[in-house]
Amino acid sequence: MISFPPTFSDVEKAAERIAPFAEKTPVLTCSAINEMAGAELFFKCENFQKVGAFKFRGACNVVFSLTDDEGAKGVATHSSGNHAAALALAGKLRGISVHVVMPSNAPENKQQAVAGYGADITFCEPTLDARESTLKKIISDTGAIMIHPYNDYGIIAGQGTAAFELISDYPDLDTIVAPVGGGGLISGTCIAAKGMKPDISIIGSEPQGADDAFQSLEKGEIVPQIHPQTIADGLLTSLGDKTFPIIQKHVSQILTVSENGIINAMRTIWERMNIIIEPSAAVVLGALLEHPEESIGDKIGLILSGGNANLKNLPW
Amino acid sequence: MISFPPTFSDVEKAAERIAPFAEKTPVLTCSAINEMAGAELFFKCENFQKVGAFKFRGACNVVFSLTDDEGAKGVATHSSGNHAAALALAGKLRGISVHVVMPSNAPENKQQAVAGYGADITFCEPTLDARESTLKKIISDTGAIMIHPYNDYGIIAGQGTAAFELISDYPDLDTIVAPVGGGGLISGTCIAAKGMKPDISIIGSEPQGADDAFQSLEKGEIVPQIHPQTIADGLLTSLGDKTFPIIQKHVSQILTVSENGIINAMRTIWERMNIIIEPSAAVVLGALLEHPEESIGDKIGLILSGGNANLKNLPW
Repeated sequence: MISFPPTFSDVEKAAERIAPFAEKTPVLTCSAINEMAGAELFFKCENFQKVGAFKFRGACNVVFSLTDDEGAKGVATHSSGNHAAALALAGKLRGISVHVVMPSNAPENKQQAVAGYGADITFCEPTLDARESTLKKIISDTGAIMIHPYNDYGIIAGQGTAAFELISDYPDLDTIVAPVGGGGLISGTCIAAKGMKPDISIIGSEPQGADDAFQSLEKGEIVPQIHPQTIADGLLTSLGDKTFPIIQKHVSQILTVSENGIINAMRTIWERMNIIIEPSAAVVLGALLEHPEESIGDKIGLILSGGNANLKNLPW
Repeated sequence: MISFPPTFSDVEKAAERIAPFAEKTPVLTCSAINEMAGAELFFKCENFQKVGAFKFRGACNVVFSLTDDEGAKGVATHSSGNHAAALALAGKLRGISVHVVMPSNAPENKQQAVAGYGADITFCEPTLDARESTLKKIISDTGAIMIHPYNDYGIIAGQGTAAFELISDYPDLDTIVAPVGGGGLISGTCIAAKGMKPDISIIGSEPQGADDAFQSLEKGEIVPQIHPQTIADGLLTSLGDKTFPIIQKHVSQILTVSENGIINAMRTIWERMNIIIEPSAAVVLGALLEHPEESIGDKIGLILSGGNANLKNLPW
């Protein structure tokens, strides 16, 4: 476990550690979208990552950083989403036990995914209190190590490997845009990108209806996200005390996006690129298209965070 | 223009000719689908090709094979679909005029795509008679050269470049599966694949409701496709006298797929691979999953022909 804010060297080590297990995801381009944005865009496709989201990078890095003694105790988390599936798969690959607390209303396909990777699931009432107390009991019973979905230095270093690969392939990017939920992805992106290219700009993108990072940077302290309202259900959480200082130091700007902007960007990517991304992944393009007044750069990397969309209920 | 059945050398020349314009599309794999199929599958993603379909390969090859004198006359075709868009873009890139006859009921997005590439569109009644007579008049007025969507040796050689790239990347494939409509893609696949690897098997896949290639191989002569009934709207046409002999010589088997099998395979690819393919592209996986009794090979290449699906009206 890393107990200090990760350095670029931690990202490099993470990249090496997860290489046998994670996908080196492709970078796609689309001339029609370049025309819309007035810039050259490079989409890092984490929708093609294992479990369909960048979350596997962080979970895999942490699980394979554990000593054998630590691993023998197993790992635990509470999550209704991609982090649970990512931890379950990483644990399966390492051969250690994984305990996941899920709210009883977690989507059935997520439950099946987590169960399919052999994790031990405990259901609880769908409240944060119930999730935390249930998790605490499991940890005290089993001795399992709690793995937070984003407020964890090993997770942050792991998430940084997406930007590490992107800049390795496209070293002349001016800017990288990443979505901001709890801040794990964007803070890892900062460490990786600034380590490789100190003059690169890092821009965060957030739904208008969940703009706690925007507010936190304005205020200079963590503003918790209360009652978020957005289709981008991966971006509902507040920043953590490990992610916020990294964001504060390196992120030059947070651009917020309307719900229509998110849906239009999602549809544009589906239609023009023929790939499936989830709403939370669409905020990066939404931010560019909704802020043509911002001069963001000529060559822009965008991290498409995941592809676990509901194919039965499309927002158009 | 090629006036003899193409050889492997024609495919190689086509690959070189179209390289500056066409995408070298990625090959994706999916461990979950491998488990379902009981084999290792390699998906050649022509849904990421220019205009969203393999059709651009053939159109590009033919347009850039024209002499300057031929090119000056322009090219013409009738099509309601991907061939029209492919020819329009290829013509735009070469800087020659493109005349497209479209039925008045052609989907609006296809009309826009063709118009967006600057082609000259003439609308006609949605009957084959009206399409052919309108095209004949345009050709007699302009001297433009007719480019058939599949019954053309240059088109066939161009379509073969998809399999050429696939086998170049994965030389140890046992089998390639391609969909069969008019036969341009699969006959090009035969020329390319057998030229590189004489012992490879080529399998065609077809909707049960448009199984004219299956019937044609059984009967030993072209059986026209009358009243096709399938969601795979790219596979409605009959074989041509240039494609059938190549198929007859090289294709070992045609597997037919039910409508449910097509829809399930399409959904499986959307859900598991996070890519968008059109129904016609799903028949290749549908064929494998619906015929587990067939021993097709351990390493199988599948050509995903295109991604121009209707995002407003999904079949599930």
